[in-house]
Amino acid sequence: MPTPLRAFGLNCTLKRGAAPSSTQKLLDQLLAALARHGVQGDSARLADFHVPPGVSADEGDGDQWPQLRRRVLEADIFLLATPVWVGHPSSLAQRVLERMDAFLGEIGDDGVYPTFGRVAMVAVVGNEDGAHKISADLYQGLTDFGFSVAAGSPAYWVGEAMGDVDYIDLDKTPKPLADTIRTAASNAAHLARLLKANPYPPPLG
Amino acid sequence: MPTPLRAFGLNCTLKRGAAPSSTQKLLDQLLAALARHGVQGDSARLADFHVPPGVSADEGDGDQWPQLRRRVLEADIFLLATPVWVGHPSSLAQRVLERMDAFLGEIGDDGVYPTFGRVAMVAVVGNEDGAHKISADLYQGLTDFGFSVAAGSPAYWVGEAMGDVDYIDLDKTPKPLADTIRTAASNAAHLARLLKANPYPPPLG
Amino acid sequence: MPTPLRAFGLNCTLKRGAAPSSTQKLLDQLLAALARHGVQGDSARLADFHVPPGVSADEGDGDQWPQLRRRVLEADIFLLATPVWVGHPSSLAQRVLERMDAFLGEIGDDGVYPTFGRVAMVAVVGNEDGAHKISADLYQGLTDFGFSVAAGSPAYWVGEAMGDVDYIDLDKTPKPLADTIRTAASNAAHLARLLKANPYPPPLG
Amino acid sequence: MPTPLRAFGLNCTLKRGAAPSSTQKLLDQLLAALARHGVQGDSARLADFHVPPGVSADEGDGDQWPQLRRRVLEADIFLLATPVWVGHPSSLAQRVLERMDAFLGEIGDDGVYPTFGRVAMVAVVGNEDGAHKISADLYQGLTDFGFSVAAGSPAYWVGEAMGDVDYIDLDKTPKPLADTIRTAASNAAHLARLLKANPYPPPLG
Repeated sequence: MPTPLRAFGLNCTLKRGAAPSSTQKLLDQLLAALARHGVQGDSARLADFHVPPGVSADEGDGDQWPQLRRRVLEADIFLLATPVWVGHPSSLAQRVLERMDAFLGEIGDDGVYPTFGRVAMVAVVGNEDGAHKISADLYQGLTDFGFSVAAGSPAYWVGEAMGDVDYIDLDKTPKPLADTIRTAASNAAHLARLLKANPYPPPLG
Repeated sequence: MPTPLRAFGLNCTLKRGAAPSSTQKLLDQLLAALARHGVQGDSARLADFHVPPGVSADEGDGDQWPQLRRRVLEADIFLLATPVWVGHPSSLAQRVLERMDAFLGEIGDDGVYPTFGRVAMVAVVGNEDGAHKISADLYQGLTDFGFSVAAGSPAYWVGEAMGDVDYIDLDKTPKPLADTIRTAASNAAHLARLLKANPYPPPLG
Repeated sequence: MPTPLRAFGLNCTLKRGAAPSSTQKLLDQLLAALARHGVQGDSARLADFHVPPGVSADEGDGDQWPQLRRRVLEADIFLLATPVWVGHPSSLAQRVLERMDAFLGEIGDDGVYPTFGRVAMVAVVGNEDGAHKISADLYQGLTDFGFSVAAGSPAYWVGEAMGDVDYIDLDKTPKPLADTIRTAASNAAHLARLLKANPYPPPLG
Repeated sequence: MPTPLRAFGLNCTLKRGAAPSSTQKLLDQLLAALARHGVQGDSARLADFHVPPGVSADEGDGDQWPQLRRRVLEADIFLLATPVWVGHPSSLAQRVLERMDAFLGEIGDDGVYPTFGRVAMVAVVGNEDGAHKISADLYQGLTDFGFSVAAGSPAYWVGEAMGDVDYIDLDKTPKPLADTIRTAASNAAHLARLLKANPYPPPLG
């Protein structure tokens, strides 16, 4: 029986509360796919928390990033899920990256990051165009901050150019995306399990 | 009667010669739309020319960039048309930007670029996802090199995520794209006409 | 005597209030350069306003975007100034783009955008690396929303790779940047004046 | 004693033959750092090979991509090294990605890619600005094609904004970059060794 793992997903939709979210739908599909590999996960919507602008671990004054940050660090797999806005990651996804910048200040003298050994996954949903660029932006940020990335495409869905179909309204998940979700989950679970059992050695030690 | 203008389009498809090109289809549609505004245009496929790597105006040894460069500079409107590959502008579109880098060495002491007054348009076609990022990459490069950009969306078409429909196989142009083509052409012609009659003054003069 | 113009700059630093801002320094330099071309301008810090996530013109509940939006539309030149975070525009700069998305819902049946005729400028400041990508992201968004972009490089400053020098601490503005500021201001003022006197005609009219 | 590994680096400089290359300098530093972890490596300059535009494994007619492709697949670690041009990966780096697109056609029915288990590293060198965006573009492409990415920043060097210092002319490697090279090599070797001993299981099997 494989080591149980934990996943945590942050949904960076601009919508608060229980408002239906296409991004949440894809995030939930990824969490379900991970569950089949022994990964227990949950998620939160950034818009439901008070996370002010800044690049520190705690901006004070009711800042709720610290509790989200803890959940990121307690998980073996971190899923950053964002809608496409103007072809870019949402302002809330960028907010997450800015707040994670503080990890760079916590690198040990031996070169070990607080995030080492954790695997990052990305999920992108939009009416149209932008997913490749967004996964590029997010992978670059997340690897910089010490996460590892498994092989294969991220899970994403966007409609035809200038379209307005919402992912949440699709009757069924298109086959290529369903396969992508399965592959992304399988590979992330495999990589996270390997890294948990065999942590990166101190690179400057 | 408005001043006649000239347009020149470079198709950066990876396919040579007469091979059908979705990118050419969109480029031709833009040229036709420009014609209705008194802009006479033609185009070339970069893949049909010997344009070696480099960042000079003429890399010698049979380099055919000089003749394309001349056509760029003789036109009032330059259209850079590229397919989406791996979510990025094609290697040939990037080759065009690299060769245009030489314009920066020809800026006068008064700050006037050889390209000032010319308007750049972008066209992007792919099976799926990438158009916004590609227009971002190209606008940044082309404005850096002294082109101006008119208001409104670039013309682009991409299919649904992970799709494989070719633009050339669509029976009809989707209405939002048809409108975008008309708007892009109208605004580019207007801007090019204004700048031709009223050149940028020497900014450092 | 040239037509007087107005400029409005939004500083998207993550720092609130009177905290020193390298981004503000560059924004102020651009406004001063514009003033020499008969452009009267001022600026605001997004972080000092309550601008919640969303893509509408007014998210209600004390949303202060409407007053900033009005200042954008009253100006002939809009300057979007952002620090580099994680190689990307700040979350606040992306917030501005998201809120501007509402302009697309206000395009007339004749194809005229509420922003037509306005010129966008970009300013980017960071300790290191990211300015080209950020100007790409912003130009793509701002032209999509109906702004025009004048010829030449945006004004930007970043230090050497992995550096930590702040622009605000430089004793003097490096000559290439000083020239870029002058060119950017001269060209933006010229373009804005042309477009004010000769508006884009209705492209679908 | 750790399993011996192999690395292969592709230098995507625009310069041919023995012309000094700042990108080669950084690539060589990474290969030397990998050697200290039991990774034997070598490299090639794409500009010295005839690699025509296309997205197939072999474009025929003297195409030399097949031999480079073989070296990529024989290695456990693939290093893609590129200069910054116009803020983007070089046209030759994009050519590499386009030619790797063929890997997607070789995915097995069980979802296993020909590249699975291989680790990708990125190296970026320029006079100025662009490294983050370039590593973003390359990571997105390389993970799409089945490579995995280890934790930490890629190795890169760029000078101050609008600068013209060449990396090859630096007397010594800046300390932050030297540390980055050590960390990148240590983590890539660790990850490649883990994945070689424990391959990704068939994700759709």
